Amino acid sequence: MALVSREHRVEASVLDDGLVPRLHRELEEFFAHAPDTAPEVGGALADLVLAGGKRVRPTFAWWGWRAAGGPVRGPAADATVRALVALELLQGGALVHDDVMDRSATRRGRPTVHTAFTARHHRGRWAGDPRHYGDSVAILVGDLALVWADDALAAAGLDTAALDRAREPWRAMRTEMIAGQHLDLLAGARRDESLEKALRVARLKTAAYTVERPLHLGAALAGAPQELVDALRSYGRDVGVAFQLRDDLLGVFGDTGITGKPVGDDLREGKRTALMALALGLARTARRPHAARLLRDCLEGGGVSDRTVDEVGELLRDLGAVDAVEERIHVLAEQALLTIDGAGLDEPVRLALGALAAKATERRW
Amino acid sequence: MALVSREHRVEASVLDDGLVPRLHRELEEFFAHAPDTAPEVGGALADLVLAGGKRVRPTFAWWGWRAAGGPVRGPAADATVRALVALELLQGGALVHDDVMDRSATRRGRPTVHTAFTARHHRGRWAGDPRHYGDSVAILVGDLALVWADDALAAAGLDTAALDRAREPWRAMRTEMIAGQHLDLLAGARRDESLEKALRVARLKTAAYTVERPLHLGAALAGAPQELVDALRSYGRDVGVAFQLRDDLLGVFGDTGITGKPVGDDLREGKRTALMALALGLARTARRPHAARLLRDCLEGGGVSDRTVDEVGELLRDLGAVDAVEERIHVLAEQALLTIDGAGLDEPVRLALGALAAKATERRW
Repeated sequence: MALVSREHRVEASVLDDGLVPRLHRELEEFFAHAPDTAPEVGGALADLVLAGGKRVRPTFAWWGWRAAGGPVRGPAADATVRALVALELLQGGALVHDDVMDRSATRRGRPTVHTAFTARHHRGRWAGDPRHYGDSVAILVGDLALVWADDALAAAGLDTAALDRAREPWRAMRTEMIAGQHLDLLAGARRDESLEKALRVARLKTAAYTVERPLHLGAALAGAPQELVDALRSYGRDVGVAFQLRDDLLGVFGDTGITGKPVGDDLREGKRTALMALALGLARTARRPHAARLLRDCLEGGGVSDRTVDEVGELLRDLGAVDAVEERIHVLAEQALLTIDGAGLDEPVRLALGALAAKATERRW
Repeated sequence: MALVSREHRVEASVLDDGLVPRLHRELEEFFAHAPDTAPEVGGALADLVLAGGKRVRPTFAWWGWRAAGGPVRGPAADATVRALVALELLQGGALVHDDVMDRSATRRGRPTVHTAFTARHHRGRWAGDPRHYGDSVAILVGDLALVWADDALAAAGLDTAALDRAREPWRAMRTEMIAGQHLDLLAGARRDESLEKALRVARLKTAAYTVERPLHLGAALAGAPQELVDALRSYGRDVGVAFQLRDDLLGVFGDTGITGKPVGDDLREGKRTALMALALGLARTARRPHAARLLRDCLEGGGVSDRTVDEVGELLRDLGAVDAVEERIHVLAEQALLTIDGAGLDEPVRLALGALAAKATERRW
């Protein structure tokens, strides 16, 4: 099934205005001039943020900026790229804290921050509980990321009016990020099986925090009129939810060819995705208690074998959950493109947003 | 021993320009208009921040403002009080995260945030580990506090120039707060016994974060000349370290009559204070291995009885550590007052800063 029309299948990389290397230079610059009061904490943050990452949020923000007529080069564009450093710091903080909450061992191919500090405690035969020490330092690394994110935005050299305009999306995206993570924790603890809750988490954590608000921020920096902000946010909500739904599918069926995400990862973690909620609903409607039991076993976590992964994958197809999610992704992506087509954008920007929608929804970014 | 001359013994409360109730109203206002995207997380933060606290940081910031000629009433003063909401939110976040790191059960007479969410998990018989759930939600509550602190500063209605001037102390105080907490964790883990490290923690956590930078922030908001900023910061460093040293003494000998801090609290927690580091140094110099062992037992934590508390208190006096700390507090307080006396301040401000120095150094605030 072709999700988006051929003309949108332009590689986003040719349209990215060299953003990723520019951003990387600004990140290096930021860390080179950051306060050295807390060198070990700041160093751990720099290692994580400079190690890579897909720069999804800055990319959407950049195209929000370009959509609103922001120039590619020059002092205002440079200040905007510097402001996007804030998004990567914020994301760094979110990752470090999420990894503590999820007890994740690796991130970006390295030990997570809490794991690394736990190991240091072990090696040094220090006093107290190594894991608690690792978690505690990771809390501080994440805290530093959050406060430095604000410092980066404030010190980007934006003109006062642009900084003022950035406040609303910046405020909203940070609160939405935290709200999404909280709902995710709560859904796990309360064994919530509703599709509605899973979609609400997707709307907050992925749509709002990752796509909609970055676009909003970039557009606000360029002084976009309200109508354009509304169109970009609408596109961002659709692309963002579709992005998460694609991620749900890849979390079961894998995308080892693209980002190395192993098959069945979400099942092993017991992630309560919209895909799983939908499948449970379908199993109930079809009166298939054995299928529902198998899905619930995954959600409860606990020893999911490779065979179970295969079996659940098969079941998700069989129940029609995979088709339903693919269909929803398709509808959301088409809707996003219609919104963009109607927004009166310059052709290169329209193509870029189309390419980004494809990149986010056809495969894992 | 009279720490400060009689003229400084004015009750600070008569000089506080009604700051505490004004601040409380602004805090209520802030929470009433905060985003409701994350109601449970925001609610936990509001409960903590509105429950009280001594408002030490806003008080020093206010007197920094007044020292630099900021008015008591009017729109600029109101905006400044609103900006001080940021200090209480920041402190709220620091407390919530510190309580997770220290595994503290109560705060401001209530269960700590992580304890309350652990209990809710228990009551609901939810899935997963209740303590890990409580810690995770507390991480999010602290995160929300940190980001809302920035939002509060940005939205206080300060004029652009004032907000620009506030950036340097605001940036510094947040990084210093995190650096101090990290060094504190590290000293505990590495069983650090040096007086130098204990004083460095006191300089960052109490002097810089609690006194010096708030004064700096308030003075910067009022556009203080560099010379006055330097004098206030110097006063703040001295008062701040003395404040922490007083706290060290009260942590052993108690101040149940004032704030209800029980006798021996720091000993039970194994806190590595400057007082304990000094005592250990004195025990070594005096070749008293039994005394050193007793002190180390406290620092290692683990079952300190009421009798041990009495014994250690006696030992601290006997070794001369109490007198040495009292002497140091005295010198720092006098030095702070000399700095202020030489700063050419108006009489009411000079008296207020003297009263604050007394309040912070003669007993627990």
